[in-house]
Amino acid sequence: MTRSRISRVVVTPVAFADPPLLNVVGVHQPWALRAIVEVHTDSGLLGLGEIYADEIHLARLGAVAAVLPGHDPFDLHGLRRLVADVLGRETGGGGASFGGMLDVSSALPTVYSPFEVACLDIQARALDRPLSDLLGGAVRDRVPFSGYLFYKWAGHPGQPDDEWGAALDPDGIVAQAQRMVDGWGFGSLKLKGGVLHPDEECAAIEALRAAYPDLPLRLDPNGAWTPETSVRVAERLAGVVEYLEDPTPGIGGMAYVAARTDVPLATNMCVIAFEHVAPAVAADAVQVVLSDHHLWGGLRSSALLGGICETFGMGLSMHSNSHLGVSLAAMVHLAAATPNLTYACDTHYPWKTQDLVTPGVLSFEDGAVAVPTGPGLGVELDRDQLGVLHEQYLTCGVRRREDTVYMQSIQPDFTPNTSRW
Amino acid sequence: MTRSRISRVVVTPVAFADPPLLNVVGVHQPWALRAIVEVHTDSGLLGLGEIYADEIHLARLGAVAAVLPGHDPFDLHGLRRLVADVLGRETGGGGASFGGMLDVSSALPTVYSPFEVACLDIQARALDRPLSDLLGGAVRDRVPFSGYLFYKWAGHPGQPDDEWGAALDPDGIVAQAQRMVDGWGFGSLKLKGGVLHPDEECAAIEALRAAYPDLPLRLDPNGAWTPETSVRVAERLAGVVEYLEDPTPGIGGMAYVAARTDVPLATNMCVIAFEHVAPAVAADAVQVVLSDHHLWGGLRSSALLGGICETFGMGLSMHSNSHLGVSLAAMVHLAAATPNLTYACDTHYPWKTQDLVTPGVLSFEDGAVAVPTGPGLGVELDRDQLGVLHEQYLTCGVRRREDTVYMQSIQPDFTPNTSRW
Repeated sequence: MTRSRISRVVVTPVAFADPPLLNVVGVHQPWALRAIVEVHTDSGLLGLGEIYADEIHLARLGAVAAVLPGHDPFDLHGLRRLVADVLGRETGGGGASFGGMLDVSSALPTVYSPFEVACLDIQARALDRPLSDLLGGAVRDRVPFSGYLFYKWAGHPGQPDDEWGAALDPDGIVAQAQRMVDGWGFGSLKLKGGVLHPDEECAAIEALRAAYPDLPLRLDPNGAWTPETSVRVAERLAGVVEYLEDPTPGIGGMAYVAARTDVPLATNMCVIAFEHVAPAVAADAVQVVLSDHHLWGGLRSSALLGGICETFGMGLSMHSNSHLGVSLAAMVHLAAATPNLTYACDTHYPWKTQDLVTPGVLSFEDGAVAVPTGPGLGVELDRDQLGVLHEQYLTCGVRRREDTVYMQSIQPDFTPNTSRW
Repeated sequence: MTRSRISRVVVTPVAFADPPLLNVVGVHQPWALRAIVEVHTDSGLLGLGEIYADEIHLARLGAVAAVLPGHDPFDLHGLRRLVADVLGRETGGGGASFGGMLDVSSALPTVYSPFEVACLDIQARALDRPLSDLLGGAVRDRVPFSGYLFYKWAGHPGQPDDEWGAALDPDGIVAQAQRMVDGWGFGSLKLKGGVLHPDEECAAIEALRAAYPDLPLRLDPNGAWTPETSVRVAERLAGVVEYLEDPTPGIGGMAYVAARTDVPLATNMCVIAFEHVAPAVAADAVQVVLSDHHLWGGLRSSALLGGICETFGMGLSMHSNSHLGVSLAAMVHLAAATPNLTYACDTHYPWKTQDLVTPGVLSFEDGAVAVPTGPGLGVELDRDQLGVLHEQYLTCGVRRREDTVYMQSIQPDFTPNTSRW
């Protein structure tokens, strides 16, 4: 029996232009960073992964990449131990930053994730099968996504307006939604809130409802509200939103709100690691968990999260950060092979203007992406584009996601809106 | 991309001689039944599974086997739907019987299981990899088992004594343990209780402790005791047993006991399906769950159970029914690839005198079985032996597991000992 081994690992930081999307901690910088992980085997296979590229994360990815050659791409448990060993040798604490939005206590799952995805890509390519076949097979051949609406400026200060223009009131949000729905066919809409007073954000949701009577709607203020305000918003939007995502911070606050409304509460903030699940279940704090293979430690751990949600009667949706096609492919395979992922997934994909995978595989039709049917993830790197985006990384000057710092460079008195209202 | 399909499925009922092992509901019949599932693909691969073979179960396996040809062996979600569809068409309710010992409400997981194992066997063979590689890779190359001790008669009534002889008191149990430890090298011991008064069973455990000061010990009375008696036994055996398994029936009773002792409580009776997990967690009823891929719906579902136990801070061990080598191989691959399965697994394997897999792969050394390194499960059918055991099935007259009925044919006044003491 021949056992292929990992022969070479390349981690390439890339940057791509990102519009000034507003959120609870500030505003997206002009450049979003990602790391592209290539894992090569001595049998000639190449597996891909994509993840955050803050400086500290990049250093950790590099440290793992350096010790991976010789490892068996099927030994995922061993890969996790190896990552833990590498991280155990460093002295810096904490996980990826997310511009200060999430409290990530451990770097392990987010460093492990892109290597796991790349190894599963390799495994599926060895079988000449799509990656979803290693996750039990696709239960749907198209994965629906939600159109992700943001309050935004017309352009980054000092730069020309972007093609989307400003959206700072209900009319602006509805116009943005029209562009999303007309251009991409989305069958549901999510508004990133936590930017304006909750009354204004409720008005935007109500305007969306008036414009799109039949589309499921979500509102996610990233914990901008007090528990009491969250209850009031839930009363106002009952029957209008399919869920409220993280209205208020923390398991305790969410449980307080959940006990006082029938509107399902979703989270990508208070349950973002396995150690948060038991306390959240005990407190009956959330009805929907947003999965994210980047954050939860890869595709198999995300499948585990799906099984836990099913076992404990919680719904399952999917979270997104600004990302490129390698991540989108992995999200699509995971969603396709997760029977109880019955909500449309989040994606920032429409907001970017460049990608580094070969075009043609990942296309949105009626708001959904067809599950790639080629081997592995089903996407290939466009090396010219990889070079372009890497060059952008080298020259853009951004080295970590710092939504608040960037916002304060424009509005010096800005402080994050967490629990502000 | 060529996609192999299932071309032919064969389900063969077999019977093998079983000693008169006593338990809470009666005594093992002279013949134990199993079904061997062979799944063939049009690419020439063969996957194996093994499961219960009560008449009703066999009929269900046959009904699934009839519709499997044409199915993709990688489409496990589709396989589950297919099994659900087949079972939905039948009118008989309930799951496998276990001689009345377990309350199995759904047939789905136990019918699905052997086909899932066979499909994973095929997948791993297509990769020329051991099956554990599809479960994240083996974290141990040898899987330790526990020596499984039983109260027993010297032989079945009307038949010659078996090689083990009688064990009906502490001396008999210690003598049986010596044979187990000397012959197989087991590094831990489990006593099946629920047969004698708890004081006698405690005395047997204490005699084992005296004879083997260093071996972890377990006692499993299958719910023979009241909650109050369970607390008393736990006090007596605190520091002596590594866990008490199912001292009393039901999540409520177990929670009562758990609240009153530091002795970990394990279960293979009150948590035997995913719908039992949330109530058990909420009641803090059990500290150790016994996994069993036959009962929980295959290897991937068992991996999910392992992840749930880790997430909710519960220990994980592994249950056994009387079984042959195909099941043992699957148990070994699963245990090898489950990092948090830190207890030695149960097995009835030493109690049988025949097998139907080619000898040499599965051997006990120091109480452990080396993880097969060949493709798939790593075991092959010995077709001569399969024929012998099938012939035994045809002629033995046993068609379902009926420990109580058989016991009452010998002791007409016997009633099950559940909650007797």
